Amino acid sequence: MCDADIFFKCENFQKGGAFKIRGAANAIFSLGEKEALKGVATHSSGNHAAALALAAGWRGIKAYVVMPENAPLVKKEAVAGYGAEITLCESTLQGRETALMQVVNRTGASFIHPYNDTRVISGQGTAALELCDSVPDLDGVIAPVGGGGLLSGTAIAVSAVAPETLIFGAEPENADDAYRSLRAGRIIPSENPDTIADGLRTSLGGLTFPIIQKLVHHIMLVSEEDIRRAMRLIWERMKIVVEPSSAVPLGALLAHRQTLPGKKIGIILSGGNVDLSTLSWDMKNRTTQQ
Amino acid sequence: MCDADIFFKCENFQKGGAFKIRGAANAIFSLGEKEALKGVATHSSGNHAAALALAAGWRGIKAYVVMPENAPLVKKEAVAGYGAEITLCESTLQGRETALMQVVNRTGASFIHPYNDTRVISGQGTAALELCDSVPDLDGVIAPVGGGGLLSGTAIAVSAVAPETLIFGAEPENADDAYRSLRAGRIIPSENPDTIADGLRTSLGGLTFPIIQKLVHHIMLVSEEDIRRAMRLIWERMKIVVEPSSAVPLGALLAHRQTLPGKKIGIILSGGNVDLSTLSWDMKNRTTQQ
Repeated sequence: MCDADIFFKCENFQKGGAFKIRGAANAIFSLGEKEALKGVATHSSGNHAAALALAAGWRGIKAYVVMPENAPLVKKEAVAGYGAEITLCESTLQGRETALMQVVNRTGASFIHPYNDTRVISGQGTAALELCDSVPDLDGVIAPVGGGGLLSGTAIAVSAVAPETLIFGAEPENADDAYRSLRAGRIIPSENPDTIADGLRTSLGGLTFPIIQKLVHHIMLVSEEDIRRAMRLIWERMKIVVEPSSAVPLGALLAHRQTLPGKKIGIILSGGNVDLSTLSWDMKNRTTQQ
Repeated sequence: MCDADIFFKCENFQKGGAFKIRGAANAIFSLGEKEALKGVATHSSGNHAAALALAAGWRGIKAYVVMPENAPLVKKEAVAGYGAEITLCESTLQGRETALMQVVNRTGASFIHPYNDTRVISGQGTAALELCDSVPDLDGVIAPVGGGGLLSGTAIAVSAVAPETLIFGAEPENADDAYRSLRAGRIIPSENPDTIADGLRTSLGGLTFPIIQKLVHHIMLVSEEDIRRAMRLIWERMKIVVEPSSAVPLGALLAHRQTLPGKKIGIILSGGNVDLSTLSWDMKNRTTQQ
């Protein structure tokens, strides 16, 4: 279908259901003993919060998570289920940052940013490291890009162990801040992007942008329809459950199939956390969840 | 969750999306050269028809499939997509049998029954053979039971290579013909059973019944709610796509968890062919598709 041989790194089978546990675990196990005792904190309504809570449990320390009060119940329950202490806040950037600062001041916990953190970036890179180890001589690797933690970690890992391999980011057209930032040579954040790929609504950070600028060959843009079609293809043909963000690289490859004919391509399927109750396969009338 | 160690044989990842290809391929490659040239025929609206079409293609022979005219479009397309010639018929047992006989008389094709055929039974048994090979010393193996092809093949294989291992069938309460037939000592077919597990609406056949009677230790019955709950658990936690019939053994184990504490149990996940467009996770209002 793609005129290419594709190898998938299935992070939907990862602990916590997404690659995020790699960065969270690396960050948490990098902390000194004294620092660790005070716990870790983050603001996130998604996979990073659950991953941080899970990895904190492994080290036996506390995780404090700031979540917007309108976050879906299923996400609150998932984070609470992993044993984190949740602080609800207003669903604005300022509300989130104020609440986080209060938590950190009160507890002394170490703030672990979802992507703009070298320990997190290094952790996320281990997925590509394992992929290159299992499948040598890949012509290219494609990872989705939101805040850029996975893509920058992937780029560092792949460029070190397989310097001939091209590195691509795949991004929703409707949240194309990485594409625009690379063209402009400076970070241009997306404002309230509307995409089904909810893990990719964030914009590049000060640490991830320069790594991507230096090491990534190209950002592929993908329409919402192509994301949905690729996601459905993965569910129907590969029989695995992936979240919309995971389908963005395959969507890119299918939409631009003439660009990599006969090549051996690695794709990182980032995760498999979807809310089945609200999932709809209706291609036309679906409204995205914020 | 089950107080047991569970090992899954994931036939949803099988060619054609279900274990059915094992029996179909064994039957087709068992045919003599002359016989094979005339092709194969069956009546089925489900996985067996698609499997037969696929395996016929591998041998380079024709497959003729009789399907009820009201079969879902997605199933007709799947069977046609594998290259079979479809004959539509009235959706009654008589309409189906008449149409099949006409096709067989016209073409000379060999009729391959979906389950009441020793070549099909032997083929289906290879899934359990591989499971016992990968995981020795299982205390029990559970397979779903509809017409009994998978369960009888499983029973023959397991009793031969692992005679200490208990063999269980799992069946929807709403289609409990195997349970009732074993109690009565004769085949008592289900009449128009209403269960979400569409692959298990058929009843035992004259070949599968005595094998199951002799080798299977117990048939576990599962409610519709437990089937749905187990299916959702598999999708959400294991991140794989399975069809409702596949969830019946796990549903049985979860409902009867106290019966096999601390045991090592193998479960055959029979397939992953679901129509995502009509799939609903609503536990209360779902109507089954016939």
